[in-house]
Amino acid sequence: MTTNSPSFQRTQVVIVGAGPAGLTVGNILRAASVDCVVLETESRAFIERRPRAGVIEEWAVNGLRRRGLADYLLARAQRHTACEFRFGGERYRFSYGDLTGRHHWVYPQPLLVTDLVREYVDVRGGDARFSVRDVELRDLDSGHPSVSYTCGDSGERRMLACDFVVGADGARGVSRAAMPPGHARTARHDYGVAWLALLAEAPPSSDCVLFGVHENGFAGHMARSPEVTRYYLQCPSGDDPENWPDDRIWSELHVRLAGGADAQALTEGPLTEKRVLALHDYVVEPMTYGRLFLAGDAAHLVAPIAAKGMNLALHDAFLLGDALVAYLDGGDGEGLDGYSQACLRRVWDYQEFSQWLSEVYHGTSAKDPFRAGTTFARLRRLFTSPVAAAAFAEQYLGTAEHY
Amino acid sequence: MTTNSPSFQRTQVVIVGAGPAGLTVGNILRAASVDCVVLETESRAFIERRPRAGVIEEWAVNGLRRRGLADYLLARAQRHTACEFRFGGERYRFSYGDLTGRHHWVYPQPLLVTDLVREYVDVRGGDARFSVRDVELRDLDSGHPSVSYTCGDSGERRMLACDFVVGADGARGVSRAAMPPGHARTARHDYGVAWLALLAEAPPSSDCVLFGVHENGFAGHMARSPEVTRYYLQCPSGDDPENWPDDRIWSELHVRLAGGADAQALTEGPLTEKRVLALHDYVVEPMTYGRLFLAGDAAHLVAPIAAKGMNLALHDAFLLGDALVAYLDGGDGEGLDGYSQACLRRVWDYQEFSQWLSEVYHGTSAKDPFRAGTTFARLRRLFTSPVAAAAFAEQYLGTAEHY
Repeated sequence: MTTNSPSFQRTQVVIVGAGPAGLTVGNILRAASVDCVVLETESRAFIERRPRAGVIEEWAVNGLRRRGLADYLLARAQRHTACEFRFGGERYRFSYGDLTGRHHWVYPQPLLVTDLVREYVDVRGGDARFSVRDVELRDLDSGHPSVSYTCGDSGERRMLACDFVVGADGARGVSRAAMPPGHARTARHDYGVAWLALLAEAPPSSDCVLFGVHENGFAGHMARSPEVTRYYLQCPSGDDPENWPDDRIWSELHVRLAGGADAQALTEGPLTEKRVLALHDYVVEPMTYGRLFLAGDAAHLVAPIAAKGMNLALHDAFLLGDALVAYLDGGDGEGLDGYSQACLRRVWDYQEFSQWLSEVYHGTSAKDPFRAGTTFARLRRLFTSPVAAAAFAEQYLGTAEHY
Repeated sequence: MTTNSPSFQRTQVVIVGAGPAGLTVGNILRAASVDCVVLETESRAFIERRPRAGVIEEWAVNGLRRRGLADYLLARAQRHTACEFRFGGERYRFSYGDLTGRHHWVYPQPLLVTDLVREYVDVRGGDARFSVRDVELRDLDSGHPSVSYTCGDSGERRMLACDFVVGADGARGVSRAAMPPGHARTARHDYGVAWLALLAEAPPSSDCVLFGVHENGFAGHMARSPEVTRYYLQCPSGDDPENWPDDRIWSELHVRLAGGADAQALTEGPLTEKRVLALHDYVVEPMTYGRLFLAGDAAHLVAPIAAKGMNLALHDAFLLGDALVAYLDGGDGEGLDGYSQACLRRVWDYQEFSQWLSEVYHGTSAKDPFRAGTTFARLRRLFTSPVAAAAFAEQYLGTAEHY
């Protein structure tokens, strides 16, 4: 065998990317005994530690549970029933649990990925290949696509012939780029601001998520675990984390999250992550090309404004996993045909909500008195109009459907 | 008497401007036997014909009725219980009446002004001076302000010494300019698009307001009377009405308001008004300076996107008329002290809603696929989420309070 003729293997589905989307699809396929291979450029140890999202919506946890994927999560995740806005030095608690009977789950993405890998590899006998390089997708518009890659250990070039390819390799993956130019349209949006994303080795300073709406800019506080808290600080686009020494960070967090005399003071701690996130979005339409089906960030990025990204990834994965099983098991192609449109409805809903919420977070710091006025009107309505509160809660929690 | 020493007269309140705000305040004052003078630069015949707004919210009609100002309106206005969005060649009827039990009244502003002038002058014996020129406000920060003007008939210069001045002379009036520089902050917003405002001598082509959401731009249809219909067509900022010959107008109206096979075709007719309206907003904070109290467009302009302008003018007028009576009759200054803040809450609510609705109207014609996606998500939610529909209806109809 020469290097031009890589070692060849057949499988039904190749899943590119071992994030929440790819691993959930893999687990659904394995539960139906569909043959599949997950390819991941990072190591298993790396993806089990990579800090990312942390909020999972109730319908998504229910979707995981129905597929036998939520045992660890349900034992360990925190149930959140309120968030709190802080502005003008006051606290405004929004108890969506009381309002709707619904809640959010807080469970860090590395834990979910760890659970999903364990279940896929160790319980369901799934084939996962880590630390691969140079993944290439071919013949996607034929009935016989293939995926080739370089094995991380041996450096050997290998090829997987398959029926379907799931492109779940995130924002910078190769799957989306494998669509021919002009096939899909990518809609983009830039919020024009950035967030300094921080992880503090410090316990949360509130029992709920805090949103600081301040003329200096937004600040966020999100519990990750009893020992770790995520903080966000709005900063200019393209800002350098070097501009943010620890004392400046804590000083701004105290100012922007001020909640009056009865608010718990923020507990400081070592900052283990300090990254500048550009806030931008994109949506690829359609999410499919021939036998390639994109899922998660590969198809759509939503800025972390409303913590929607991982939820959209799981939504895609439920629809795609079920649709692939329906087709491969029973020849029913309806789910695959409708996949892109069904995903995009929730994607656009969440993008719209993120834009709406972005204005609440960032509108008062824009030094534009008109934006400040409409922003406060938006915020005030949440706490004075029961129907506005109900509409907000629905979007914040995500429309509950049965997946 | 020289020209430097104009003829002098005393009154309690001078009201600058005989629009809905000024005349409503005047009527409230006259009902309490407060002495007042209304000054208006136009003739009575002119203001009784000037086409402007046409939608009055139910709470505002109730406020007029409680003050004995709605008899003619209630006999002649049309009650509307639905609006209809048209997009993708389909009709989407939004029956806010069924949803809330509330409605809108359609009553052209010239008719309301005619009613208010008749009541003020002919019934309540109010003093109104039309066709005045060169109105000047003086000593507003003292306890003894005055307003001087040139009499339209005689050309004589006259001065009214008074306790209070109501600045209700609209967007281009002198009242707002009489505030010293730096006293109030004017927040401004420009939508970046314009509307061609049209009046057609043609019966309405639907029993309700129509909003055409189309990639060519927004189009609106609003009944004014059984014989007259208002239409709007989104056009570029600064467009010239000369660019819009009648056949182009009707052609675009048919395209943008297309509603499928079962929709009534638009009835064409002579176009008696063809103006380009720049869509912009402003808000003056505070709305008061010493003894000067601004009301209506003098204090805040809201683009006609959600038909809120006249409603805000009436809201100001109810609060201001009642507050002036409370002070002048009983020495209670609380209403006057809280006037600006109480008005501005509803002003900002309506500005916020107008911006939200502007995105629905204009977002799909911006040639930006991201804006088109979020716009359609917004629109779709109105017809799929009962809580989103309820929140929209509340803002569309205006929060019902008792005035």
